[in-house]
Order: sequence, then C-alpha cells, then structure tokens
Amino acid sequence: MNGIDASASIGIFDSGVGGLTVCRKIAEALPGESLVYLGDTARVPYGSKSAATVERYARACAALLMERNVKMLVVACNTASAFALPLLQASLEIPVVGVVEPGARAACSRTRTGRVGVIGTRGTINSGSYEKIILRMCPDYRVFSMACPLFVPFAEEGWTEGAAITEVTRAYLGELLPHAIDTLVLGCTHYPLLSAVISEVAGDAVALVDSAEETARVVAATLRDRQLINPSDEAGQHAFLVSDAPECFRDAGERFFGYPLERVEWVDVRGV
Amino acid sequence: MNGIDASASIGIFDSGVGGLTVCRKIAEALPGESLVYLGDTARVPYGSKSAATVERYARACAALLMERNVKMLVVACNTASAFALPLLQASLEIPVVGVVEPGARAACSRTRTGRVGVIGTRGTINSGSYEKIILRMCPDYRVFSMACPLFVPFAEEGWTEGAAITEVTRAYLGELLPHAIDTLVLGCTHYPLLSAVISEVAGDAVALVDSAEETARVVAATLRDRQLINPSDEAGQHAFLVSDAPECFRDAGERFFGYPLERVEWVDVRGV
Repeated sequence: MNGIDASASIGIFDSGVGGLTVCRKIAEALPGESLVYLGDTARVPYGSKSAATVERYARACAALLMERNVKMLVVACNTASAFALPLLQASLEIPVVGVVEPGARAACSRTRTGRVGVIGTRGTINSGSYEKIILRMCPDYRVFSMACPLFVPFAEEGWTEGAAITEVTRAYLGELLPHAIDTLVLGCTHYPLLSAVISEVAGDAVALVDSAEETARVVAATLRDRQLINPSDEAGQHAFLVSDAPECFRDAGERFFGYPLERVEWVDVRGV
Repeated sequence: MNGIDASASIGIFDSGVGGLTVCRKIAEALPGESLVYLGDTARVPYGSKSAATVERYARACAALLMERNVKMLVVACNTASAFALPLLQASLEIPVVGVVEPGARAACSRTRTGRVGVIGTRGTINSGSYEKIILRMCPDYRVFSMACPLFVPFAEEGWTEGAAITEVTRAYLGELLPHAIDTLVLGCTHYPLLSAVISEVAGDAVALVDSAEETARVVAATLRDRQLINPSDEAGQHAFLVSDAPECFRDAGERFFGYPLERVEWVDVRGV
C-alpha cells in the first residue's frame, strides 16, 4: 500500500490547450480513469518565458491539482517538463510524469541512422532536455534541434494547412533537413496538429514522433506498476480547469482534445 | 497647482515589447521627460485573453507604476486600453492616456471616403472600441474590423518580411480590402514593425494610421494643458521594468524601441 487512492483522478496540466493532445491520448488509452486537466490560459504561453517564471507557474499548477487530491501528475507541456519536472518529482509524493523523456525514448527506438531532429518552443530547445536524455540513452547518436516559435500560434489559430504555414514550416525545417535526420520529435504538445504539413515538408524518409502517445503509454505503465489503476468499472470523468475565461478555451480546446469539453471551470492560480 | 510633481516620470505599460513603439515616439517627442516603461512579459500576450483577466493585469501594472510616483500613465497596449482605460481613468488622480482614442481620432481626420479599416488583436477587435469611438466622432463613417492574431508573434520573432508574413498579411487583408477602405488603423502596438508588408499588400490607395505617433502627440498636449512639462533642462532618463527575465526582453525590446535599452530591471507584478 502506498497511501495513494487509486480511485482518484489523474491531474494533467499545460500552459493552455496544447496539453489536450496528451490528455486525449491518456483518455483513449485509459477510459476507466478520471482526469482533471488544468490549462493555465491566463499566463499562456510558457515556451517563450524564462526558466524561473515557468518553474513558478508549474509549481502553482501542481499545487492547485494537489488540492484536488490527484493520484498522479502529468506535466503535459514540454517547456514545463524541461524546466520543472525534477523539482516537482522531488517535492511531491505521487508519481509525476513529463512529456520529454517518453518522447526522447521513442525517438531512440525509432531511428535507424541515429540522426534525430527535435523541434519545440524556444524554452524547450534552449534547455537542451531532449538532447541530454537522448544522448544519455544513446551516446553515439546525433541530435539536431530547432526552436519553432511560430508553430504554437499557427496551431492555436487552426491555420494547419495552406501557403502561410507551409512557408513557415519550410523555413524552420530547412535548417534541420540538411543534417539527414530520419526521425523528428514533435517536442511541443501543439505540434501534432501540424503533423500533416510537417510530414509533407520533411518527406517520407523522416518519421515523426508524437510525445503524446508515448506519454500515455508511460502513464498507463506507471499506474499498473504502482497499482494505481482505478478499480471502478465505470467510465472515467473528465474535468477541465482554466485560469482565464472558460469561453476563450472551448473552441480551440475541442480542436485539440478532439471531443466536446463538457465541463470547463475557471480557477484562480494566483493564490497557490 | 494640481498636486502632481511635474519633475516625475511618465509611466507607460504594455503586455510586453509592443508598447515600446509608443514609448519610442514619446521619447522622441518629449526628450526632456523621464519615462518608466513596464512590460508585463511574464503574462504576455493580453490580446488573446478575456476582458476580466486583462483588467486585472492592467490594474496591477498601473499600481506598480503608481508606486514609482509617475505623473501620468500611458496605457501603451490597445487591448488594455480597450478593456481597462475607463476604470483606470476613474480610479487614478493623474492623467491616463490610452492608444485607442488617438488612433481613432487620427483615422477620422485622415480618411477621405469615410471607409476605415481597423486591425488588431482578437481582444481589441471584439471589444469594438475603435468602431465605437470613430462612429461617435463621425456617425456616417463605415468601419471594417479584422482580428489578426498571427501578426503579434511574427512581429515579436522579427519575421517582418518574406513569403510567410506576406501570405499571412494577404489572408487577413483579403477580408478587409474588398470594402474599399482608404485608411487602415494599425490597432496594435506591434503592427508598426509590419507596416512595410501591410502597406505593400494594402496598396498605395490605403493610408496606414500608427497609434504610436498620435498617442505621443496626445501625451505632449496633455502635459502642456495640465502644466506638467518637466521643468528641468536635462535630458530625461529611461527605465525599463519587466515581469519576466530581463534577458528575454532585451533583443526584441531594442528592435521595437529602436535604441539600446540601458537599464532593464525585473519586478514582481503579482503582489500589486
């Protein structure tokens, strides 16, 4: 017995809507689990902000979800995972899973040439997190990284095809593709919405790795290992919390989650 | 005598770097005035956030600048002006100037056909602020508005020319230009950095109105009217405050301000 209630919800947080791509994969992989998702929409984005500020926000999000007695915490944001995962793991008694290590692990098993590309926010790329984890697992691999700060606003706006996003994608990948990568990690939870255009520009020879799927697998495995699978036979409940107005979240949120968002509730993240 | 110290600084705030285009015009128009600029970079952007959240942030920024004993407050952000100007004017004893009314007034005097376009953030456009002020001054004019949410990230990234921004500009203005506007208000402090591409896509028949210049004129006139011109013969000092890390502000900041930023200091906006 570990003192954690297996019937409690899994807490998931992100700076905004992006982490809903992770939330969706967890919901699909674990339909019996209840989920509480927190999008810190009053302070989005995290990807362009400093490590100190992102750490402070991540602590506040974690504290708010801990007040809801979650049994596990998923940091469904690459930037927050890159900057704040170790400190959250050290300070909390429940399992804490980020999105960087699952994505890095998947890239290592997917590549055949050992030449891996990573794209993400400026924060994630500057942190070097993916590179460090990949090279720790596979020291002879080569990692080529590129910050793609315009991808988040394009994904949030739903401009996922057409001339503008194709031009932006060509500009970013034009820096990476000459390195002959065979695997490209989508190191930001927004990027799966752009996978069609990224794939088209990158070409068939480059496999895309989506951290969301890999993270859902790690979440499921962790629950099993820690004997924290929800014992109930009923379908899990999904609750969505946001720090800005719920109506600003719903439209983009449903595009990222892929299903209707039934309950979206405002929460005050300042006090925690 | 109005009890306000004319030798004090002018306080200016914005969500981030955008308001530096306004700060620059004020610095150029009033070289003898000291300026304290606050960029709320820990919570940027405001343009996609709700009225309630932007109001709360604007109050905090104003309170922080009031603690520095400023003699006048300039809300150098269209979204904050649209949502929070009346409440700041009602609650503060010093003059408070926003950027929306000066821009609207300039558009009214510039247009010959009375067909005015306005572009801005989603918040500014949804507030209808420009339209209301223009139609109050000139009830027979027609105002056509368009939110251009991707312009802010492009301006912040410095992608101000090339195929991608041209495609984005064509997509946005393609909705406005069929209305045969002859004047286009740049209703966001980031947009002056994109004026070349906007002008190219809009064509010679459309005059661009930059709120920054107009706001600097209103600031100068207000200081004169209220007898608040700094009596010192020395050049004014410029101080820059930010709520996220100063090093994240400097590069983009210098591009927007047009001059080196000598002093950039971190401030905590949470407590106010």
